[in-house]
Amino acid sequence: MSETSKLESVKKFLRLLQERIIGAFEEIDGGTFQRDPWEYESGGGGISAVLENGVVFEKAGVNYSSIAGESLPAAATASRQALKDRAFTASGVSVICHPLNPYVPTTHLNVRYIEVEDLDGWFGGGFDLTPYYGFEDDAVHWHRTARAACDGFGEHSYRRFKKWCDEYFYLMHRNEPRGIGGLFFDSLKREGFEDCFKFVQRVGEHFLDAYLPIVKRRMNTPYGTREREFQLYRRGRYVEFNLVYDRGTLFGLQSDGRAESILVSLPPRVAWRYNYTPEPGSDEHRLYEEFLKPRDWLDDE
Amino acid sequence: MSETSKLESVKKFLRLLQERIIGAFEEIDGGTFQRDPWEYESGGGGISAVLENGVVFEKAGVNYSSIAGESLPAAATASRQALKDRAFTASGVSVICHPLNPYVPTTHLNVRYIEVEDLDGWFGGGFDLTPYYGFEDDAVHWHRTARAACDGFGEHSYRRFKKWCDEYFYLMHRNEPRGIGGLFFDSLKREGFEDCFKFVQRVGEHFLDAYLPIVKRRMNTPYGTREREFQLYRRGRYVEFNLVYDRGTLFGLQSDGRAESILVSLPPRVAWRYNYTPEPGSDEHRLYEEFLKPRDWLDDE
Repeated sequence: MSETSKLESVKKFLRLLQERIIGAFEEIDGGTFQRDPWEYESGGGGISAVLENGVVFEKAGVNYSSIAGESLPAAATASRQALKDRAFTASGVSVICHPLNPYVPTTHLNVRYIEVEDLDGWFGGGFDLTPYYGFEDDAVHWHRTARAACDGFGEHSYRRFKKWCDEYFYLMHRNEPRGIGGLFFDSLKREGFEDCFKFVQRVGEHFLDAYLPIVKRRMNTPYGTREREFQLYRRGRYVEFNLVYDRGTLFGLQSDGRAESILVSLPPRVAWRYNYTPEPGSDEHRLYEEFLKPRDWLDDE
Repeated sequence: MSETSKLESVKKFLRLLQERIIGAFEEIDGGTFQRDPWEYESGGGGISAVLENGVVFEKAGVNYSSIAGESLPAAATASRQALKDRAFTASGVSVICHPLNPYVPTTHLNVRYIEVEDLDGWFGGGFDLTPYYGFEDDAVHWHRTARAACDGFGEHSYRRFKKWCDEYFYLMHRNEPRGIGGLFFDSLKREGFEDCFKFVQRVGEHFLDAYLPIVKRRMNTPYGTREREFQLYRRGRYVEFNLVYDRGTLFGLQSDGRAESILVSLPPRVAWRYNYTPEPGSDEHRLYEEFLKPRDWLDDE
């Protein structure tokens, strides 16, 4: 397949994935996404789709973009000097979802395809989950679906991408994972375009199977100020991760991307409290003790 | 003066400055700061002082620290390779103040003294102001006091440090200054320890003269949901600046500093809204048009 038709197939898949996720979120929420098409200065553009103040989703962003540029930004070349000063295209879908109910976890999905002048293209992405209140059932379902997405893509791929996810979504200054992880992968090309593309499509398709049952199970759980305040507090960690560590965010800001689209990942409302620690034995404490530790969720099977 | 006695004089001044600012803030607020002493692994430590949910100050942090380490973190050596792998001490006071009333601006002060093995020590710091609603009177008073702090420290020092401040506190991804600026300086040593230290003391002393009259003038202005929501929204920019650009924050996080002390700068409550733009002609719009543009506030004098 030529580079052009590879890119075109990926873009087609990405646009369909975006619309499928928008559709599923709208169905569950009842609200409507606002779609904003935009153009990128040096080529390409995107469609940002955002739902705010929904019944289920306080804020959800489902963004598609495919941009072309003369040279990759520092966030992409820092550890790969060979990529410097080469023309590129970067295409992807990013989903971030901040539910209103603190019992529904925040989630994030990304799938991307990068082509760089004179080099083979590669895929990256994954999905991860950030609960405010932990449920074993949810975590096991989430990781079981993640494992299913990896089926057929080489041995140990779930184990490998799960570990990568735990390592990537980690706040060093807090000594804390962002959540309970899932899958993370980058520079995927060794297996060949066809197989990598098939795998990435599976990841995209399994995302809703992983997330929606958890949303439906938790979205009507009654909650009060205490749970809401804890959710706002924990969302602060999400902001810290995205602005201090996340390569995708830094890539976007450094490549002069559309700030409003990139930062749609930031929660609608956040609180920082000085030196807060949850009361021992509380549900909030249990989140730290039992869920915010890298764990093998499927080891009993 | 020996290096030891220089450092001791600076530390003494910093501790007094911290207590003086705490005293002044407590007097105006009526609340009490919580003081947390802490130790740094490789030497030294600090005292964090935080006031939360005050009548005037929704959150204020007045932190002192003096730490020693084997080598400076990347945030300090990125543009100065000569500093790599040398033992250092870093001492400073950082103040950040998030008032409750949206008519009272947020402020920030920092004064610091760095000594690096085999090199002369240097000073850095400054103060800057971030209003939510702009008032010419406040801006002129702020900059007039900043200029007074620079009196006697060489020609053009106010102009130079004011420009440096405008350049430093700038959000590139938003094409927007953080606020109306003030003073910013770094690597101060050419004028000799004595003169630089005297200047830094003047900066510390002028800070309260610059800020308190503005607080008193605005703290009883009635406000409603609209002003509060705009304040929460604008605070998002403060978070973006501190986590994406601020060298002090990155220095702290990279040197494995006390995260709770470093991140006390983050506002107590924040909101992000997608694609918000203020209504033309509104007070919110006036902030962008007339205050969030680098301006020569004293050019009429």
